Amino acid sequence: MLSERLTSYSELTEQKLGELLSESENAPILQESMAYSVFSGGKRIRPALCLAACELCGGTPQDALLAACALEMIHTYSLIHDDLPAMDNDDMRRGKPSNHKAFGEANAILAGDGLLSLAFYALSLCPHPDALTVISKGAFEMVMGQSLDVNSGGDESLLRKLQDYKTGALFRAAVGAGAACAGASLEQREALTRFADAYGMLFQITDDILDFEGEASVLGKSVGKDAEEGKTTFVTIYGLDGAKEFAKQYAREAREAVLSVGGDAAFFAELISYTLTRKS
Amino acid sequence: MLSERLTSYSELTEQKLGELLSESENAPILQESMAYSVFSGGKRIRPALCLAACELCGGTPQDALLAACALEMIHTYSLIHDDLPAMDNDDMRRGKPSNHKAFGEANAILAGDGLLSLAFYALSLCPHPDALTVISKGAFEMVMGQSLDVNSGGDESLLRKLQDYKTGALFRAAVGAGAACAGASLEQREALTRFADAYGMLFQITDDILDFEGEASVLGKSVGKDAEEGKTTFVTIYGLDGAKEFAKQYAREAREAVLSVGGDAAFFAELISYTLTRKS
Repeated sequence: MLSERLTSYSELTEQKLGELLSESENAPILQESMAYSVFSGGKRIRPALCLAACELCGGTPQDALLAACALEMIHTYSLIHDDLPAMDNDDMRRGKPSNHKAFGEANAILAGDGLLSLAFYALSLCPHPDALTVISKGAFEMVMGQSLDVNSGGDESLLRKLQDYKTGALFRAAVGAGAACAGASLEQREALTRFADAYGMLFQITDDILDFEGEASVLGKSVGKDAEEGKTTFVTIYGLDGAKEFAKQYAREAREAVLSVGGDAAFFAELISYTLTRKS
Repeated sequence: MLSERLTSYSELTEQKLGELLSESENAPILQESMAYSVFSGGKRIRPALCLAACELCGGTPQDALLAACALEMIHTYSLIHDDLPAMDNDDMRRGKPSNHKAFGEANAILAGDGLLSLAFYALSLCPHPDALTVISKGAFEMVMGQSLDVNSGGDESLLRKLQDYKTGALFRAAVGAGAACAGASLEQREALTRFADAYGMLFQITDDILDFEGEASVLGKSVGKDAEEGKTTFVTIYGLDGAKEFAKQYAREAREAVLSVGGDAAFFAELISYTLTRKS
């Protein structure tokens, strides 16, 4: 059920993404490098949230499709830049060489810059101006979160703020843009923002748990890579059980918030359960 | 006269840029690194063109101020990313250490990403949707130009297209956004686009001439650094005299185009003369 709905949102998004990327046909290597990362098997959770929020507030997925594509391009650009040697220095992403490994650093920087620019070009085609407001805010907050992460030196007191910016901001933008494209009421928007705040925390905490468990099982140790690298995560602060408890609590908050929007929130409820128990 | 008008546009722009950058106060190093490059003595030609185009088409500078700030932030982000080691690897910019030399590569990448995102946040506050259309298109074309430059291997046949994207696109965006914020007619917009096409070429050719003459005089040689590095420029293709002739021709085209808009085009005429004879 989740996968059916997610697949249908994903197909819609991918078709439109393909059209938008063809804007770069005069710069073939830019086009190739952007497409390489955009079409690399992402789960398209942000566009799905945008399209689902639009439907929940009475619109059609088509109403929010440009906003959904903008969100996925912004998410993808952030992954490309995060993987750069000067940032996380990751050679692999989603099971294949990261963008800079495949195209070189200069082209990876430009692929990111291009996707961020193209995202706003897509939004210029979207007739709902509030979608631009929430998405540009989310894109900027994401960079703030990344900057805090790069410069925080593992300061525990910054973790929540930092993760709220890094992960939460784009989820807020996703549901906010979907709501804007449906002409949602203020109450609906506020409920969706509460959902996104809680879902963002759930997503980040389960990510930290996965990282910890994955690394611990590979290494056969009782601590994961993050802890060994001195990286502050929800698991390093609250322990594995504490983090799992937090995840459940945020799942509850997210569920309550989205139910208060009214309408058929089945997709959201299933996405929350899926995220709480996810294995990747 | 030019400097008076340019100074007044520049002061207006800088005050608003300061306000916009304060959006990043929760990420102090991001704010500092963005401000470092934004307030580093740029001539503010793109915002000035935007504000002047708005006035020429019957608006006030205030009408186009958010668009002008967006253009300057986009221009600045492009300089920060161009200077990165993987790109042009420039240690100095406007007489001081480039952003990555001052803040490190990770922060420089984020300063660029932040400025590009904040530019579109500024545009979300601008009530003229066409400004977003032309500026997002310009921002994307600029990345295409940069990609062609990085990957062209000095292919002469690509030079004009490449420079049109790299330099012309943002000038087109500047006058196009200014015109949009004034509610200009289609004829006015088309004339301003012709101006920007010609002015962009004039700007790029005089840039190539300056590079050539600067390097040649420093090195006491008959060729500049670009030629020695195998970089294709208008000077390496057409020679110094040929390039100067082209510059004059584009100055004439730019002047004719802007006069056809109607109204007081004195600022534009002086900017063209200034650019044709500029020493920096």
